Amino acid sequence: MERISVKELLSTAPLQQEIEVNGWVKTFRSNRFIALNDGSTINNIQCVVDFEKFEDSLIKSISTGAAIKVKGNLVESQGRGQNVEIRVNDLFIHGTADADTYPIQPKKHSLEFLREKAHLRVRTNTFSAVMRLRSALSYAVHTYFQKNGFYYFHAPIITGSDAEGAGEMFRVTALDAKTPPLTDTGEVNYKEDFFGKETNLTVSGQLEAEAYAMALGKVYTFGPTFRAENSNTSRHLAEFWMIEPEMAFYDLDANMDLAEDFIKWVLQYVLDNCEEDLKFLEHRLLDEEKSKPQAERSEMPLIEKLRFVADNNFKRVSYTEAIDILRNCKPNKKKKFEFVIEEWGADLQSEHERFLVEKHFKCPVILFDYPANIKAFYMRLNEDGKTVRAMDVLFPGIGEIVGGSQREERLDVLQQKMADLGIEEEELWWYLDLRKFGTAVHSGFGLGFERLVQFATGMGNIRDVIPFPRTPQNAAF
Amino acid sequence: MERISVKELLSTAPLQQEIEVNGWVKTFRSNRFIALNDGSTINNIQCVVDFEKFEDSLIKSISTGAAIKVKGNLVESQGRGQNVEIRVNDLFIHGTADADTYPIQPKKHSLEFLREKAHLRVRTNTFSAVMRLRSALSYAVHTYFQKNGFYYFHAPIITGSDAEGAGEMFRVTALDAKTPPLTDTGEVNYKEDFFGKETNLTVSGQLEAEAYAMALGKVYTFGPTFRAENSNTSRHLAEFWMIEPEMAFYDLDANMDLAEDFIKWVLQYVLDNCEEDLKFLEHRLLDEEKSKPQAERSEMPLIEKLRFVADNNFKRVSYTEAIDILRNCKPNKKKKFEFVIEEWGADLQSEHERFLVEKHFKCPVILFDYPANIKAFYMRLNEDGKTVRAMDVLFPGIGEIVGGSQREERLDVLQQKMADLGIEEEELWWYLDLRKFGTAVHSGFGLGFERLVQFATGMGNIRDVIPFPRTPQNAAF
Repeated sequence: MERISVKELLSTAPLQQEIEVNGWVKTFRSNRFIALNDGSTINNIQCVVDFEKFEDSLIKSISTGAAIKVKGNLVESQGRGQNVEIRVNDLFIHGTADADTYPIQPKKHSLEFLREKAHLRVRTNTFSAVMRLRSALSYAVHTYFQKNGFYYFHAPIITGSDAEGAGEMFRVTALDAKTPPLTDTGEVNYKEDFFGKETNLTVSGQLEAEAYAMALGKVYTFGPTFRAENSNTSRHLAEFWMIEPEMAFYDLDANMDLAEDFIKWVLQYVLDNCEEDLKFLEHRLLDEEKSKPQAERSEMPLIEKLRFVADNNFKRVSYTEAIDILRNCKPNKKKKFEFVIEEWGADLQSEHERFLVEKHFKCPVILFDYPANIKAFYMRLNEDGKTVRAMDVLFPGIGEIVGGSQREERLDVLQQKMADLGIEEEELWWYLDLRKFGTAVHSGFGLGFERLVQFATGMGNIRDVIPFPRTPQNAAF
Repeated sequence: MERISVKELLSTAPLQQEIEVNGWVKTFRSNRFIALNDGSTINNIQCVVDFEKFEDSLIKSISTGAAIKVKGNLVESQGRGQNVEIRVNDLFIHGTADADTYPIQPKKHSLEFLREKAHLRVRTNTFSAVMRLRSALSYAVHTYFQKNGFYYFHAPIITGSDAEGAGEMFRVTALDAKTPPLTDTGEVNYKEDFFGKETNLTVSGQLEAEAYAMALGKVYTFGPTFRAENSNTSRHLAEFWMIEPEMAFYDLDANMDLAEDFIKWVLQYVLDNCEEDLKFLEHRLLDEEKSKPQAERSEMPLIEKLRFVADNNFKRVSYTEAIDILRNCKPNKKKKFEFVIEEWGADLQSEHERFLVEKHFKCPVILFDYPANIKAFYMRLNEDGKTVRAMDVLFPGIGEIVGGSQREERLDVLQQKMADLGIEEEELWWYLDLRKFGTAVHSGFGLGFERLVQFATGMGNIRDVIPFPRTPQNAAF
């Protein structure tokens, strides 16, 4: 007998021959109807058991969470809600799930409760739908880049460089924790550590990706990155996955075109390939928001929101224009913002970004040409001498989903900038080499994958879109 | 003008309109012929310059490694070796590469020399071919699993668990390195560390993948894993990428079927999609092996070897059969092995595996049903009480490329095994939960991605198939 999944069964016409399927019991009604699921789809297959044909003890061990194997015939369903069902001829219990101790019962559990059970929560409809969608989005990312001539580049995770400055880093070490070896001057002697120097977990693969883009033309990373920041919010993780394309011969305009096209394409991919999971998640969100005041509810149902983003142009606005809008907007004048915008040069906070996206433009926005002194050292200086070719893509409900820039390709300008910021040239000798030998215009951006999954699933807390979240005081499992 | 890559140009018929292409100069001959490459393909496009039309200073800055933009007409080539070439109308220098200081000159560099220049080595033909192949193989991995109903699962990188015992671990910490906080009893107080406990870099995502397989059915990981082992060999990295599928309701036979089908499929994918890079790498290997004695050369050219593996069945042999073969083979009787095989129960060394694969069977071999006491605690005990349902896939020239098993799904047997080995139940409470609630037969395996890339590219040293290798005393870039 062929191995067959519930997903395949549900799209199959009634069959003459006997089939076999494995899965977990979602519910068991009237000693007769098993809703069986194997994780392949959000939908269950109904298995109809003639309980008089089986031992009492067997029937008693069919409960929510039990793993079973069913043999039977796929027939047209008599009941409503499904086209086909299985008339069960034989039934085998792989493993039971005691109703008194199994935590995932067929009732509503809070997301907080389920976070404590991260090894079991993916057995719920919500988390299985989120994680299938996460998988589909990952594949969409790879497919988009591979079809468009990009090469996948594995950036190093352990790095000896700490010059990027994107955030606080975790140290990676094999030294004795209590009594590390010391130098003559009493400092920790990293020469005796595994790598012969101090090493950290990467905060970004960008600098290394630039080296690869300057050889392979167009590359992208998709790997884990880390921030040792004590941010206990619904938007931050200490370990998260990042996508970082980097392209030789792309200026900022081409970079913005790519970011927009990329996001639209991957969202269209899940619209095309994850319809049932999206429908489930849309209902979940509507249900969750029922208890919220109208003003806090989503403006559009989930699927309509994804279609809206996939089908409409993002608004491109320079930082300078954005400051003008913000300075003159009502919440600024009435001092409703926590940080009132007074003049050009101010760093934009989440409240400002949300105002622009959610209230003013009501669509995704790309801000570009930021003041140089609020952006990273490697961004290309504009001719005005005070702005850099940076861009951020801002999304409703999520805020910044992409940050990118054209990179400073001119050796002398980059050296001056590093000197101004006190970044040692010997720390980044290889990065400067890229400007010494065959330098060229190039650009790239970073997209926090979990924020994209949040947007596509409508989940409010970033801890609920990654299998085992790592946050301050939490590295369980 | 459309952005167009060298790869696209080379597969295009001569065109009437002017095109524009960017890239790096590979060579410049006779002040007239530029071989231009942009990383999209191993092949260069010839650009024909009428040097009398350009400034002398411009012509002089065209040297190996310079980044240039060329505008011109794509015409039928007059010379041999290419179908089309560009007759250059206009030429712009993005960035020069001084011939006296640029390390990547058009001559043969040793792989050792290039390892010191990991930021530039991908500009050579060899490394660009390897890294394009690595990218294609990565995508083949995702595509195989996605098309076969698997969901991609991101295993955590930072882990609070150290029970798996697959190898020495790196510690991840944000504590002060020199004077960490201590407990009352004078031990390092990890409660004050970022995660409130001691944390390490993962050695395997398997245990967490089991939790996901027992909900989504079929999952796979593809992420970085780490070993803090002081192995300075051509086969070991401290940071490498691993692929770990895990399947509910799969026994060991189904697991072996999957491993074999998977490897064949991804190799066929690169045969179908990377022909030019493979041809280049095949020639490189033949060239490299010319200086070796006949006995050390590859038995087949690279492409033939890949076809052989893709087209022929792997040989499946039980550990017990393998021991019989080894005990009675010539090198064992003549004590040519470093470790002479005396009796059942011996752990197989690389020399034994290579004998079986390269001398005895002359094809990939899957060994299965190993003695329990040389394998991990989570492998399913056979009815004989002394072997476990483990399997290793052994490849010519590479050795072990896959290690897998059917997992122990019986709670009592697993608890007994953990007790025997002194593994605390509270360390793995969640892993035991998977056996308490809806347990079922399940299996999986791990494949070291770099070993697969080595096999597919013919590269002898694992440091040459990952962009920035991490090994003892080396975390440069």
